[in-house]
Amino acid sequence: MLFKSVTILNEHFDIEKDVDVRIEDGKIKEISKDRLEPYDATRIIDGKHRLLIPGFANVHCHVPMTLLRGRGEGLDLWTWLTTAIFPFEAKMTADDMKIGTRLGLLEMIRSGITTFTDMYLNIGAIAEAVAESKLRANLCFGLSAGEEPFDQRRGVKETLDLLKTVGTNQGRVKVDLGLHAEYTSDEETVRGVAALAKEHQLIVHTHISETKNEHQGSIERHGMTPLAWLNHCGILENPVIAAHCVYVTAEDLKLMAEKDVTPVHCISSNLKLGSGVADIGAWQKAGIPYAIGTDGAASNNNLNFFEELHLVSLVHKGVTKDPTFLQPKELLAAATMRGYASQKRTNAGLIKEGYDADLVLIDLDKPHLVPENDLASHLCHSAQAEDVCMTMVGGDILYEDGTFTTLDEEKILAEARQATKEILARI
Amino acid sequence: MLFKSVTILNEHFDIEKDVDVRIEDGKIKEISKDRLEPYDATRIIDGKHRLLIPGFANVHCHVPMTLLRGRGEGLDLWTWLTTAIFPFEAKMTADDMKIGTRLGLLEMIRSGITTFTDMYLNIGAIAEAVAESKLRANLCFGLSAGEEPFDQRRGVKETLDLLKTVGTNQGRVKVDLGLHAEYTSDEETVRGVAALAKEHQLIVHTHISETKNEHQGSIERHGMTPLAWLNHCGILENPVIAAHCVYVTAEDLKLMAEKDVTPVHCISSNLKLGSGVADIGAWQKAGIPYAIGTDGAASNNNLNFFEELHLVSLVHKGVTKDPTFLQPKELLAAATMRGYASQKRTNAGLIKEGYDADLVLIDLDKPHLVPENDLASHLCHSAQAEDVCMTMVGGDILYEDGTFTTLDEEKILAEARQATKEILARI
Repeated sequence: MLFKSVTILNEHFDIEKDVDVRIEDGKIKEISKDRLEPYDATRIIDGKHRLLIPGFANVHCHVPMTLLRGRGEGLDLWTWLTTAIFPFEAKMTADDMKIGTRLGLLEMIRSGITTFTDMYLNIGAIAEAVAESKLRANLCFGLSAGEEPFDQRRGVKETLDLLKTVGTNQGRVKVDLGLHAEYTSDEETVRGVAALAKEHQLIVHTHISETKNEHQGSIERHGMTPLAWLNHCGILENPVIAAHCVYVTAEDLKLMAEKDVTPVHCISSNLKLGSGVADIGAWQKAGIPYAIGTDGAASNNNLNFFEELHLVSLVHKGVTKDPTFLQPKELLAAATMRGYASQKRTNAGLIKEGYDADLVLIDLDKPHLVPENDLASHLCHSAQAEDVCMTMVGGDILYEDGTFTTLDEEKILAEARQATKEILARI
Repeated sequence: MLFKSVTILNEHFDIEKDVDVRIEDGKIKEISKDRLEPYDATRIIDGKHRLLIPGFANVHCHVPMTLLRGRGEGLDLWTWLTTAIFPFEAKMTADDMKIGTRLGLLEMIRSGITTFTDMYLNIGAIAEAVAESKLRANLCFGLSAGEEPFDQRRGVKETLDLLKTVGTNQGRVKVDLGLHAEYTSDEETVRGVAALAKEHQLIVHTHISETKNEHQGSIERHGMTPLAWLNHCGILENPVIAAHCVYVTAEDLKLMAEKDVTPVHCISSNLKLGSGVADIGAWQKAGIPYAIGTDGAASNNNLNFFEELHLVSLVHKGVTKDPTFLQPKELLAAATMRGYASQKRTNAGLIKEGYDADLVLIDLDKPHLVPENDLASHLCHSAQAEDVCMTMVGGDILYEDGTFTTLDEEKILAEARQATKEILARI
């Protein structure tokens, strides 16, 4: 495949016009300011009024929760969880979760997400749906304190089963080890997760200091912040994906900078649940490479990565009262390359020769993207998911001009409606 | 025209399913839970998976500024204004403004805006473009201090000329009187605007306390806040549209509640320029009926009303740390009915028999709107401009399923690109 005379977001996150990009064997083979010649049977894509960018990495999600979209609107957090969320989740089958996953995959592919990091249960079923879609994902089961000995827990079994299925753990679907959160764990669980991650060289995916209550509660329970306690129990000897981090101390920041911790900024969810606004300026200053996540659709309420870009850019300018804060370049690096790096996916997340062809083509021929005064700014402040005209993963086109190639949109919408009805009838 | 078995946002801003809605002579003629029979030659629109809502009122805009979208990204406010905005605006002709207006009209119609309130110059040219589009608008020239006597100012002349053109000032295009802001005015100008508005029974559209500097500066200059000073000079004897109001005192709130003042919340722009977040909770408590605006595209950076809904809902929950703050009902009333009321358009902005048929049809058959757990929440948190499948003003369809009926999209995009190039060449 050959993109001819396309505008790209290059490896330095600068806009570069009139470039040819050749895709071969799932990789970006050649990038040239000179015209490249097509091979025989090469598909040529005209780059006029098109912008080619690396795909987005959505680094914190609970994808099956699309079925809970909009449930319990306007309730406080505890009432929302106990009356709207938990009773529904308790009645979801593995099949329901697969259906919710497929619905979320449609949303993610449509908004230019090419890889995501997820925590839920029934990860074998979720992995099957993801594999069908050809999207990339790092999946984990969110372990919490339990009655059984650690080794006999369902989450451990599901994790090890999926590890066996995916083999080398280097493919499109990868397995992480999930630790739900400090406040839902005991020391046995945390130490068990730390050791198991070490043994299998897995990333640990967890929630850290999402709310003030949780943060303060940990200090009361352990005399330590959630991150400090997890470190105390050995978790930070592994690479860590730390969702939220709305409340972190100077010592937490130091830990994050020293260890291999990627905080994930989930701005929609933090706003919607009234958790607060994470101080990503402090993360930046401490040199911590953060990433961006949608969180689940129940608290977002969609999986649209462009909305996250807009929100992150706008809200922090407003809250800091500094319109110069967080330039598009920085934000776009967090949204792509840094997310891929957090998943331990190398040679990915950039438009660079030899890198994975995880690419998104944006149609610039839209009123809200004209004139093209600053396309990096347009991406962060004006572009919409609808502007995505192609989503490609490893050279495979998953979406193009209204059509999903690996997923049956109409069938998924019908199944999602039906599954939701049936779950509600069981509550 | 007859909508059959459609879901509507009813006059109480509740979701009501399976309703028939008949449109006749530009009005909502009949709303019925029973099936209505079509007259001969009535067009029937199947309401399956469709949501019919009143159109949005965008109550603060500078529509020609679409041509400045993305200019001066990442600059502080003063550098942005003086190096990116003013030099460009100085080279814009009336024709350029018409082109920028048309570009903005495309965006607004596409995102379900059916009426807007605007401040700029060359309002005769802008009015022509709006009239062609059949959208509704309250237009004004933003007057500021000048050398000439008040009566001889260009803005006064343009206002009176347009008033003559529109006749009774009760049509789709209406004329307001614009006062740019306290900090760009002198007492002669403000008193002149107050008297002229009184004489012609016009709404005064102005900017109030957008930034802390402006607010404090007024107190230094006049010993009064901007709103108090405008009141002192007689402005508040007229209905007032007060954009921004990020910084207002308890006395300002009292004034707003007593007089006919509609503060307009422009959250994208206030965030993007680092101005801060207006305390709309205090407005609510004081019983002040606020509306919502996009501001110009230079500081937004688009005219997409769904983004404003999302931002207003999410940001205030996050900033107040109260997930129960600002329920969809309240927000949707501000976005529609209250905006129309601020423009002195009666019997409009609601789905109610006898009201103007200013309606937007939303396609619910989208992954991010499934399942339909709570459609009012979906509108505020998940719906996209792309979900609008029809925008209707006064019974006229302005947009349907990808096609603008009154505007030539392709031509407008080409003209906007060309005009921008030529303006840049003149700087």
